[in-house]
Amino acid sequence: MNLIQSAKNEKVKHWKKLLTRKERDKTGLFLVEGEHLVFEAKAAGVIEEIIVTEQYYPKLPKAKFGNDEVYVIANNIERLISDTETPQGIFAICKQGAATDIKGTRFLLIDAVQDPGNVGTMIRTADAAGFDAVVLGVGSVDPYNPKVLRSAQGSHFHLPIVRGNLNEWIEQLKEKDIPVYGTALQNAVSMYEVEIGPSFALIVGNEGQGVDEQLLEKTNQNLYIPIFGKSESLNVAVAAGILMYYLRGK
Amino acid sequence: MNLIQSAKNEKVKHWKKLLTRKERDKTGLFLVEGEHLVFEAKAAGVIEEIIVTEQYYPKLPKAKFGNDEVYVIANNIERLISDTETPQGIFAICKQGAATDIKGTRFLLIDAVQDPGNVGTMIRTADAAGFDAVVLGVGSVDPYNPKVLRSAQGSHFHLPIVRGNLNEWIEQLKEKDIPVYGTALQNAVSMYEVEIGPSFALIVGNEGQGVDEQLLEKTNQNLYIPIFGKSESLNVAVAAGILMYYLRGK
Repeated sequence: MNLIQSAKNEKVKHWKKLLTRKERDKTGLFLVEGEHLVFEAKAAGVIEEIIVTEQYYPKLPKAKFGNDEVYVIANNIERLISDTETPQGIFAICKQGAATDIKGTRFLLIDAVQDPGNVGTMIRTADAAGFDAVVLGVGSVDPYNPKVLRSAQGSHFHLPIVRGNLNEWIEQLKEKDIPVYGTALQNAVSMYEVEIGPSFALIVGNEGQGVDEQLLEKTNQNLYIPIFGKSESLNVAVAAGILMYYLRGK
Repeated sequence: MNLIQSAKNEKVKHWKKLLTRKERDKTGLFLVEGEHLVFEAKAAGVIEEIIVTEQYYPKLPKAKFGNDEVYVIANNIERLISDTETPQGIFAICKQGAATDIKGTRFLLIDAVQDPGNVGTMIRTADAAGFDAVVLGVGSVDPYNPKVLRSAQGSHFHLPIVRGNLNEWIEQLKEKDIPVYGTALQNAVSMYEVEIGPSFALIVGNEGQGVDEQLLEKTNQNLYIPIFGKSESLNVAVAAGILMYYLRGK
């Protein structure tokens, strides 16, 4: 066991930098922390390196991680690479998913949603609702941001989460006869007017501005969720959840 | 115009204390900030005092707030009574809603949900879905917590938000023949098996533990949202949104 004790160690510096989007984009890697996410990453086969604290090391399931490159860090190094207040002593460096083609029947397209909790929650819900991919357009938070990873609770490892040009995605979906539904408060129909079908793509948009007008012009139809009370709108992650479950049918 | 300039002013001390649950419970008052919430509070008729900064004061719509007690504070006092990083210069002290009887047809019961963002978002969704009240049981965050108020975006002023004993609520709802649905992962049926009716109450529970076992034993039926993918569960506010919209019908 080689113990890393210095904050100036090159590995530590590299891991710490992965908390920034710039470094994640440059390397195609990301950092997850906590048992749940690390175990999910292991099951998905995307781990490059395991990092554990001295304190955690005896608990590491050697059968599971026997073939992995394991680094042990001094307990006081942990806070440097953690994004949480109470880290659990286990981390993994993982490979980001590659760009993907249109495979499957249900897609969530996210246009410029910036809150990491909302994006993570939508990824988790898309997984639960049996979606085949989540595509993040320009202006959305990085899906490998630590807070997005935490909110998604491992769903990153269950379905492709990719960045893409939403204009191109819409065109390609339509070429494959997959209907594309935007969400909008104006020039839209109630979700109850949609004929539920076996495949579709749903676009949700920025918390304040909604989906970009240019994208809305390209969709097959734009939908709203009826408001029966006095609130003006719904939280974007809640709206996405209601629509994903409604449109997929039973 | 009487300008309050000292942090030691008795009014300032009182307002500041309203950021704590203890003081809110003791006084039956709460503090809201920002134009949107203050204007909603005004429309609901629950304002006791208006507070504006010197800088905001010229912008205050005198026609709307002419009969209110308005306090003007020096700009540097603002941060003492604000819960946000970029306060907007306008605050209101409001009366909390009184306990309420069962009036209406749709109710959301919240059992021990502690995250203020989740509770606020559920209040907002209950409003949108046309619910008649939200009842918070023991162990839930205070609905007048500043973060709950922000996430609910004014829905506190649209429907009764009350604290209550959920055991008693369930009994009274059942006496009125309003079916009560719990949410659970085990000993439960798919939401799609419920016969959609004109009235119901839905109970959602703690992010980790779910709804209390004792409450689940008292319901008419316990429901789960089918998981079509690989995630283990849904965020509680998303689950509540999907169920509220599904169970209310079109």
